[in-house]
Amino acid sequence: MKPFGRVVICGVGLIGGSFALALKARGLVREVVGIGRTTASLERARELGVIDRFATDWATALDGAELVLLAMPVGQMLGVMQAMAPHLGPDTLVTDAGSTKRDVIEAIYSNLKSHLEQVVPAHPIAGAEKSGPDAARADLYAGRKVVITPLSENRPEAVARVREAWAATGASLHDMSPQEHDRVFAAVSHLPHLLAFALVHEIAGRANAEQLFGFAAGGFRDFTRIASSHPEMWRDISVANRHALLAELDTYITELAWIRALLSQGDGDSLLKLFSEARDAREAWLAGRFDA
Amino acid sequence: MKPFGRVVICGVGLIGGSFALALKARGLVREVVGIGRTTASLERARELGVIDRFATDWATALDGAELVLLAMPVGQMLGVMQAMAPHLGPDTLVTDAGSTKRDVIEAIYSNLKSHLEQVVPAHPIAGAEKSGPDAARADLYAGRKVVITPLSENRPEAVARVREAWAATGASLHDMSPQEHDRVFAAVSHLPHLLAFALVHEIAGRANAEQLFGFAAGGFRDFTRIASSHPEMWRDISVANRHALLAELDTYITELAWIRALLSQGDGDSLLKLFSEARDAREAWLAGRFDA
Repeated sequence: MKPFGRVVICGVGLIGGSFALALKARGLVREVVGIGRTTASLERARELGVIDRFATDWATALDGAELVLLAMPVGQMLGVMQAMAPHLGPDTLVTDAGSTKRDVIEAIYSNLKSHLEQVVPAHPIAGAEKSGPDAARADLYAGRKVVITPLSENRPEAVARVREAWAATGASLHDMSPQEHDRVFAAVSHLPHLLAFALVHEIAGRANAEQLFGFAAGGFRDFTRIASSHPEMWRDISVANRHALLAELDTYITELAWIRALLSQGDGDSLLKLFSEARDAREAWLAGRFDA
Repeated sequence: MKPFGRVVICGVGLIGGSFALALKARGLVREVVGIGRTTASLERARELGVIDRFATDWATALDGAELVLLAMPVGQMLGVMQAMAPHLGPDTLVTDAGSTKRDVIEAIYSNLKSHLEQVVPAHPIAGAEKSGPDAARADLYAGRKVVITPLSENRPEAVARVREAWAATGASLHDMSPQEHDRVFAAVSHLPHLLAFALVHEIAGRANAEQLFGFAAGGFRDFTRIASSHPEMWRDISVANRHALLAELDTYITELAWIRALLSQGDGDSLLKLFSEARDAREAWLAGRFDA
């Protein structure tokens, strides 16, 4: 594939930084320019070689850019799009790494409406509780999935080129509608994050929190790992995808109410069946039987 | 410390097998005798050197035994105690590894009531989703905690000797009342297991389960790791500790209802505060600030 010329990364943390490093590792980019909210992060990213230089305004950043990746928490998409729109030339492609797609696409329609041909939304499935430029690594996306939710207005060549960029990170590509994307990730990602935050928060607020944490072990550690995730990012995701997330939360609370009934009746047989079905499903998943 | 003579392990899986291997690795046991439900497991344990020989009846198993460890799922405690009681001599100590303590102690009072001086209940905090003799290892308890819930009827020398055995596995020892034990573990262990089983079960039952699992990633994998736990063991724990577990479940459902309200109001500030507090508490825990 033809290497990219200048690539602009807005948000040089785990997600944006790893995208840059993946292209760099394969010699597929001439120059990476960073832009973002905090100069300290940009300086750190340059120091680490994640970016080659950084810009502090969009006019400079976008000058001669072939591709822009928007890799900030989704709550910042709207403001960033407003700021970049006046400087975005017709030959610069844009993609994003937002964890939700309906709200990002709404922001595109409101703020980049003269650029719909060239903006191709995406979501790489590669979360990690670490964040910031120091967490970035060239192989973050290797073997992972990237969901692409193209707009009907996208130029086919724009979609093809953005796909090339994501594929170059080592990820496999999957097309979805934004609605389907947001429902799927509400179930398998956003809800589990909410549940983990909820458990840790609830325990931390108790008078005997110290004793409880003192006896928490490996199961608790793994169950709550995602409660160490970036709070602002998850605030944005939760608010942006709240309709799908509320539906998932209600479904889950209904499941808990059913389990509550089994427990209070001491119905060991039904609990055993439920636990066994869960374990079997999880083992089948781990064995790759549900690979998309 | 003085090595143990003959140690009997009832249930030669992860928990019982690792106890045996730990004593063996330190040369602290003359002979380990296994007993249990399935001959295949006993044969496998002997093959692996986890036990030296096995017995198929309690009279043989208990003959000349210094210490018995009951390491079966808690639902089997009552039946096992009934079977062993007639053959239990006054000089044989008994401990257990049951994940719940109130029900095990009730079973002791009903079935080993002439032996209360010599039966010292315990719970090693060392779960793992693996089970069976092949999962056993000498270092499972190293650096872990063991909770001891002595009976007021226990002989001090019996408690001291059982403490020696558990300490020899490399674990640190912590005394608690059985009620306190069951409340603490309902919160930090039993509830998280129930929540993980619930999520996997709920998703596995959907028409698009295949798609959902297909896009589940690392966060989901860690969050649900404990849903690969032994279903029978967790059925027994859930039923045995259902009163404390129901209280925990209700507290958690209340927390979810509150989060639901924040979500439906789109209250990003409160969600951010909640997520940040959860992350901070978890990081403090990981940093060892809550070590008992």
